[in-house]
Amino acid sequence: MSKNNPEKIITADQVAQHNTRESCWIIVHGRVYDVTEFLPDHPGGMRIILKYAGQDATEEYDPIHPPDAIVDNLPPSKHLGRLDEGSVESIKQEQRIPTEEEREMAHRHSTKPALSECISLHDLETVARHVMPSKAWMYYSSGADDEITLRANHSAYHRIWFRPRVMRDVSRVHFSTSLLGQKSSMPLYVTATALGKLGHPMGELNLTRSAAKHGVIQMIPTLASCSFDEIRSAALENQTQWLQLYVNRNRDITEKIVRRAESSGVKGLFVTVDAPQLGRREKDMRMKFDDVGTDEQKESGEKIDRSQGAARAISSFIDPSLNWNDMGWLKSITNMPIVLKGVQCWQDAVLAAQHGCAGVVLSNHGGRQLDFAPSGVEILPEVMSALRDHGVSTDKFQVFVDGGVRRASDIIKAVALGAKAVGIGRPFIYAYSAYGEEGVDRAMEILRDEFEMCLRLLGARSLDEVTPEMVNCSNLGSADIPKDYLFTGNYERLSGLNDKMSKL
Amino acid sequence: MSKNNPEKIITADQVAQHNTRESCWIIVHGRVYDVTEFLPDHPGGMRIILKYAGQDATEEYDPIHPPDAIVDNLPPSKHLGRLDEGSVESIKQEQRIPTEEEREMAHRHSTKPALSECISLHDLETVARHVMPSKAWMYYSSGADDEITLRANHSAYHRIWFRPRVMRDVSRVHFSTSLLGQKSSMPLYVTATALGKLGHPMGELNLTRSAAKHGVIQMIPTLASCSFDEIRSAALENQTQWLQLYVNRNRDITEKIVRRAESSGVKGLFVTVDAPQLGRREKDMRMKFDDVGTDEQKESGEKIDRSQGAARAISSFIDPSLNWNDMGWLKSITNMPIVLKGVQCWQDAVLAAQHGCAGVVLSNHGGRQLDFAPSGVEILPEVMSALRDHGVSTDKFQVFVDGGVRRASDIIKAVALGAKAVGIGRPFIYAYSAYGEEGVDRAMEILRDEFEMCLRLLGARSLDEVTPEMVNCSNLGSADIPKDYLFTGNYERLSGLNDKMSKL
Amino acid sequence: MSKNNPEKIITADQVAQHNTRESCWIIVHGRVYDVTEFLPDHPGGMRIILKYAGQDATEEYDPIHPPDAIVDNLPPSKHLGRLDEGSVESIKQEQRIPTEEEREMAHRHSTKPALSECISLHDLETVARHVMPSKAWMYYSSGADDEITLRANHSAYHRIWFRPRVMRDVSRVHFSTSLLGQKSSMPLYVTATALGKLGHPMGELNLTRSAAKHGVIQMIPTLASCSFDEIRSAALENQTQWLQLYVNRNRDITEKIVRRAESSGVKGLFVTVDAPQLGRREKDMRMKFDDVGTDEQKESGEKIDRSQGAARAISSFIDPSLNWNDMGWLKSITNMPIVLKGVQCWQDAVLAAQHGCAGVVLSNHGGRQLDFAPSGVEILPEVMSALRDHGVSTDKFQVFVDGGVRRASDIIKAVALGAKAVGIGRPFIYAYSAYGEEGVDRAMEILRDEFEMCLRLLGARSLDEVTPEMVNCSNLGSADIPKDYLFTGNYERLSGLNDKMSKL
Amino acid sequence: MSKNNPEKIITADQVAQHNTRESCWIIVHGRVYDVTEFLPDHPGGMRIILKYAGQDATEEYDPIHPPDAIVDNLPPSKHLGRLDEGSVESIKQEQRIPTEEEREMAHRHSTKPALSECISLHDLETVARHVMPSKAWMYYSSGADDEITLRANHSAYHRIWFRPRVMRDVSRVHFSTSLLGQKSSMPLYVTATALGKLGHPMGELNLTRSAAKHGVIQMIPTLASCSFDEIRSAALENQTQWLQLYVNRNRDITEKIVRRAESSGVKGLFVTVDAPQLGRREKDMRMKFDDVGTDEQKESGEKIDRSQGAARAISSFIDPSLNWNDMGWLKSITNMPIVLKGVQCWQDAVLAAQHGCAGVVLSNHGGRQLDFAPSGVEILPEVMSALRDHGVSTDKFQVFVDGGVRRASDIIKAVALGAKAVGIGRPFIYAYSAYGEEGVDRAMEILRDEFEMCLRLLGARSLDEVTPEMVNCSNLGSADIPKDYLFTGNYERLSGLNDKMSKL
Repeated sequence: MSKNNPEKIITADQVAQHNTRESCWIIVHGRVYDVTEFLPDHPGGMRIILKYAGQDATEEYDPIHPPDAIVDNLPPSKHLGRLDEGSVESIKQEQRIPTEEEREMAHRHSTKPALSECISLHDLETVARHVMPSKAWMYYSSGADDEITLRANHSAYHRIWFRPRVMRDVSRVHFSTSLLGQKSSMPLYVTATALGKLGHPMGELNLTRSAAKHGVIQMIPTLASCSFDEIRSAALENQTQWLQLYVNRNRDITEKIVRRAESSGVKGLFVTVDAPQLGRREKDMRMKFDDVGTDEQKESGEKIDRSQGAARAISSFIDPSLNWNDMGWLKSITNMPIVLKGVQCWQDAVLAAQHGCAGVVLSNHGGRQLDFAPSGVEILPEVMSALRDHGVSTDKFQVFVDGGVRRASDIIKAVALGAKAVGIGRPFIYAYSAYGEEGVDRAMEILRDEFEMCLRLLGARSLDEVTPEMVNCSNLGSADIPKDYLFTGNYERLSGLNDKMSKL
Repeated sequence: MSKNNPEKIITADQVAQHNTRESCWIIVHGRVYDVTEFLPDHPGGMRIILKYAGQDATEEYDPIHPPDAIVDNLPPSKHLGRLDEGSVESIKQEQRIPTEEEREMAHRHSTKPALSECISLHDLETVARHVMPSKAWMYYSSGADDEITLRANHSAYHRIWFRPRVMRDVSRVHFSTSLLGQKSSMPLYVTATALGKLGHPMGELNLTRSAAKHGVIQMIPTLASCSFDEIRSAALENQTQWLQLYVNRNRDITEKIVRRAESSGVKGLFVTVDAPQLGRREKDMRMKFDDVGTDEQKESGEKIDRSQGAARAISSFIDPSLNWNDMGWLKSITNMPIVLKGVQCWQDAVLAAQHGCAGVVLSNHGGRQLDFAPSGVEILPEVMSALRDHGVSTDKFQVFVDGGVRRASDIIKAVALGAKAVGIGRPFIYAYSAYGEEGVDRAMEILRDEFEMCLRLLGARSLDEVTPEMVNCSNLGSADIPKDYLFTGNYERLSGLNDKMSKL
Repeated sequence: MSKNNPEKIITADQVAQHNTRESCWIIVHGRVYDVTEFLPDHPGGMRIILKYAGQDATEEYDPIHPPDAIVDNLPPSKHLGRLDEGSVESIKQEQRIPTEEEREMAHRHSTKPALSECISLHDLETVARHVMPSKAWMYYSSGADDEITLRANHSAYHRIWFRPRVMRDVSRVHFSTSLLGQKSSMPLYVTATALGKLGHPMGELNLTRSAAKHGVIQMIPTLASCSFDEIRSAALENQTQWLQLYVNRNRDITEKIVRRAESSGVKGLFVTVDAPQLGRREKDMRMKFDDVGTDEQKESGEKIDRSQGAARAISSFIDPSLNWNDMGWLKSITNMPIVLKGVQCWQDAVLAAQHGCAGVVLSNHGGRQLDFAPSGVEILPEVMSALRDHGVSTDKFQVFVDGGVRRASDIIKAVALGAKAVGIGRPFIYAYSAYGEEGVDRAMEILRDEFEMCLRLLGARSLDEVTPEMVNCSNLGSADIPKDYLFTGNYERLSGLNDKMSKL
Repeated sequence: MSKNNPEKIITADQVAQHNTRESCWIIVHGRVYDVTEFLPDHPGGMRIILKYAGQDATEEYDPIHPPDAIVDNLPPSKHLGRLDEGSVESIKQEQRIPTEEEREMAHRHSTKPALSECISLHDLETVARHVMPSKAWMYYSSGADDEITLRANHSAYHRIWFRPRVMRDVSRVHFSTSLLGQKSSMPLYVTATALGKLGHPMGELNLTRSAAKHGVIQMIPTLASCSFDEIRSAALENQTQWLQLYVNRNRDITEKIVRRAESSGVKGLFVTVDAPQLGRREKDMRMKFDDVGTDEQKESGEKIDRSQGAARAISSFIDPSLNWNDMGWLKSITNMPIVLKGVQCWQDAVLAAQHGCAGVVLSNHGGRQLDFAPSGVEILPEVMSALRDHGVSTDKFQVFVDGGVRRASDIIKAVALGAKAVGIGRPFIYAYSAYGEEGVDRAMEILRDEFEMCLRLLGARSLDEVTPEMVNCSNLGSADIPKDYLFTGNYERLSGLNDKMSKL
């Protein structure tokens, strides 16, 4: 909104008159915007906006958009002014009747199992899957293309086996560590994920508060549903947070974000490098179609491919030209340690070290970008080996991995192979989508208990004692390819005469 | 039909009297033929012809046969003359009532999803599978024997994984290329497939027109439903087309076809070398039996194995004696670059280069010929290596692959391993079977968008930057064998006492 | 029966009075036997005999027993005499009413598909499975223990892939060969299997007659339902037959059998060496229990383990002491080439050659003996290699394999790896169980057509051109283990909270 | 209970008054205990005790607890005295009505198959699974975490194949052996498992008695439902038994147990080293929740995590500090051979030999401790090789394995790879849970018959002839990972347009 002019006051009735494709005003967070010209450019399609034409769209807008999206995307001339709150009464009186899905969800929430029945992260995910709105579940759980990498991220851990030691005094086991110079109670951190309010109205704040209690570091996402300030404010004084960064085409915006983060006490900068363009996520795309209905679409003769639009629109904000030459500039604007998030081969890990990064996250964006990209843990051994071969100290240059983790034993496997810590994203989101902040607490407790048990049974008293010899990863590179459901779904099975004979 | 004699005019009534096994006339494209003696030789069995005895068989004939089949297969004496169109009225008046299947298909077509809902080639295939007549679906989708190779063609791509690079300026990515000296907007071409009208009345013309719009090369099939001239005429002036060739036992016929193609502007000759005899395709064979009904068959005491007949009949036109010694003759009749389509081992690729071919297509005929033949992409690395070892320039001698491709990422994997381009057949057929020409357009757009995204996420700005180091094919040769449905369908599972106990 | 004494004549009424456990007479093939004392020793349990106490048991006896079993197993004193055929009337008048299963089977036979609809050996098996009595199907199809080897026999072929050659003149392809000096139209033979009449009243004669027509060699089983003489007599004059031999504890019996075979014109002796004791075949064992009913059993307090009895009983006839030292004796009693059937490692193949055998069959008895024995084709490469290393000429010393074959392409793979021919057992039994002799004819035709097509598509004009280079068996030794149904059937799947949530 | 004071006599009425959370008395085996203060510390949660507040809890207590648990866990002051048996009448009169599950179980027991129908250990397990109470089945069958190791224990055997020899005189085969100097009729022993009465009221005594009959050694568990003295007393005079030992934090208790065992004639001491803390067994944990009901739980606001409590409680008795330095002490208190049970890598096997142990059991506690620990048989080859490399005589130092065994052929595979014998646990428990002592007899007979058959078919006349060359374990280390049901249960399959099309 415009900074210096006194804002115009607009009544709800005035807004209500602009409820057509030809003139479309909407209210978001008490401000009125003219989105008529923006309609065809909306990444989510124009139909969803027209649903709120002349009305307050805040509830729909909130979980989907970064807080300032509308302000940033509309020219100042379309920021029409402030809503006359007093005028709203008449509109609000049309008490919104909960939808079928909302009532169903409410019922499910009220009958879900007690939190203590959740005894693994899988359980929290199961509950979330059943109590979340489909749209949120599909958005969070989706992966790229055939979701091969999405699933391989997890199954890779199943190809790493332990070689436990016995007859060691494991009365006491410790698993705290130091990440980028900050203390962490466990070798894990809460990694950045977008649109946190889709699953729960408190969004990312659930993570901030639980992380504080459990001594775990949180990475703040650029595309959070809560604003950066909200998330920082929710943190305790000594709580460590990092910032995940999408570099903007407009470097000034990025510089402003980075400087503000550093001055507010953020302790690390994780630059996402695996998303010069957003990946193709079928489940998410499919949801959009269901939203608008195919019949209307066909009648309207509309041929716009909204899915493409979405990818292109977001690409317009993320800078696909980011490259190694930009490292100098990045280092010039901050003293925070810089970590590249999304490295997928040893060559780039070595380059990151040589360009002065503090570390890398071996990650494929949770399987949401390039399908058939390898999982972080799968390339971890060759990355560690290449860093050593290139004289990089892996004490100072820290290697993280993320993707597919569901148990502390997964993390211990990664630690054995050289990772400093592992990022966990979806499981924590599912935890709060099902049970709010307490769900995240429960997830943290489960992990802590699993760490204690697993280290004891492995015969390791601290993370230092979790050595490469304690795992057998000889099958890590072997073929174990998740099923291709789309291809096999179209394959017509040979049945010979079996069908015929069964009917005799 | 006879060239110089004025054609006799025959009335529909006259034709209608020859409606028995003893004397069987049929009308095709306005000409009348006596097929009585041909009945036992008909590859598809005599029953299907007798169904149209004394009537117009054009509608049934059209999608199944190359346009001139009847003319070529019957001696001139059986070309009885031209139908008196005026006499047809009485026959046509018996308004044909649509069959159950036709009405079902019409219903499905009218309720199928909007084209924009198809967001992958798999979707187009899914729609096609449901809106096509069974016979067409079974013909197109069938593979040889146990369809192991059919499915392995696709799954081989899933054993090739990416090694993506990050921090590269991928603002702009290009994927145009040059194939046999002709421009192509993408590293793919429309490969030849038979009987295009089974899926859509416009048949191969759907491909011609869409290929033109998208700057993609089309390979014209010998066994097209549309005639060569129709397909050439539908092409734009600068549109590149190639010709797929089955060499005829009668070399004069082949020479005529090749010379006509070259003079009409065709830019490449792809000689099919993997089909000295047609493969055994169970789904297709099964359809024929259902067509005629088993009861009648048993009553008639007929023991002819029509399936064998089909293979033998078509073999009689394709020359199984074609061998390396014929290369001299082939090169003598054309200046078009000659590419052998259906090479399945490195030795034959090297021989092709040594015999002056312009390239090879590593192909197993879409899994329709010899089951357990390897997929093209699976042998690609050893072929490239052998060519280099034998001093063959792989710039000049171009290697193509086909079979099993469903995504641009599949193609990029093949390109990384050395392929110049990839042939796509069934997916485009399914596209137009479901949505006509627009379906093919959609398939092309999907592929184009996938190319752009995939290259960007891979960190490659052009096909030159897609190098062997960008893929991990260490599992390409590992065992990953599609399920043997016929064997397992007959296997009686051990159940121990489980069945018994379940009933307690 | 006693040779020299005139037989006593006994009436049906007399027999009918001995219908109890205390005195049990039965009629088999017109002779009367007192089996009272034999009851507890009967391998199949006493109950099944008591069912026919005082009656004619021929129909039940016939398919299960070698023709002379009863004569050989009972002491002469129990051979009571000949039945007075005239006295039978009264018994026969109780017209036997067909059982439920018999009527069901008759219905299935009358509605089964036309033979020409069977387009692969799998189809013939499918029909057989549905039209055979359960007991026969279970007996033929069963394997040892978990049936791992049974299934691995087939799946091993799926780990061998072709490397086809193109551009060879394959106008004419030949696949006749010479086995132990005898002509064979295809590189296969009908191998020996027991109890042929379970599937069809003509039993093994179906095989003899069809083999004659197709120029294929038949191996006559020791445990055939038809007698040796019947099978020899059914052969054409120039038809080649071999004899399969279980060596008897009583070597005189064996010598008599062998000499009779040689003098009657049998051309090869296949000594089974993988069955010193019969394997454990669960499906077959399970059938026996169902036969007698568990309630009666419990009431009777009977604790005899009939399954154990069966194995022990048959072991008492087969000599488990047979060893290499017996080779001298074996060679002394015959000039027929001797082949050891059931060799399962290269060491024994080399020993066989060194002991003067004419060849070996790499076989695990169709997966019916030791589970987890390797398939013949899986050890074929190492056997061929070891023979060469030990200076054995593999022209003279012929290597056969059997087990798991369903297509000519399987056979060609074995030939490529060095096998002279492949034995086929169950598929031919299934063929005649479904369609009698014509079924076997059909199977032979299918194989012949597959040979022709496969050789042509492989680029081989004769078996000589089917070389090791034409197959890729690099995955032959890789793990591909059939599912363990009994173990997994007992495993209780983890479901987490999924079951609970699904019910909300 | 207090040793020297005369016990107070308490009436049932008195007990009945203490039936609340505030004052809770219970009767166990005729003694009265005040458990009020113990309630929050009860590993199984307080709710289950409160169910019996003021009543006799013996029936519930018995199968779950080691006999002296209550005496050991409560301070003497809470041992209130002896129950006045005469006073019980009134309570007992409320004739307990069998629960729904009990009646269902009784019905199942009465209709289960005859024992002779069980022809493999799998069958006994199947029957047990259906006739046992859920709680018992879940306790016995459960494994750690995702039960990957649980299942891998069995599937590892399926990656070991035989290389059978033929033409050996196998008239007689022997498979008796000597374990730690004691005779054993087969190369197997009954290994220790906890809570034997859950499956059958006679508990471990079923094993003792059957083991005696079959010449098999039994290992007595520390956590048996029957007391040590009961189990020793049930043994025959010459029957060999071993003792499984959890070392207590209080070494005096351990010393007392060990000395008592040795003086009573126990012949071997198996120290469990893989359980410094109990593993996480989901099925078992899940049972506890169902027991108490989630609604009550929520109302009560109770947040205690009973599952954690259980692990911690039992950890408080087992000493997690046990280490190699304790070996001197252990050897000082006994002359029995000491074997470490739960070794999981070659390094610890070598250390055990160097510390004077008599052997090791390669074991992962039946897959109940650390998930992704390797199976015993999988590491057997490297253990044997390392022992030889370190100069350890594997005649004197004996290596055992356990876990996953279901057939004698499994055991023979382990013997071929160097194991002296194999421990069998669950299968014998299932056997008696289904059929009592006779079930164990049946299991022993089945194994004995399988040994005889398997050795004969393998061509080995004794265990000495079962050599490493007789097995092919080249795939033993290959990836064959049991399915991850929790992860895949949450995965939302991609279905493309298939669902939509199926509804057209």
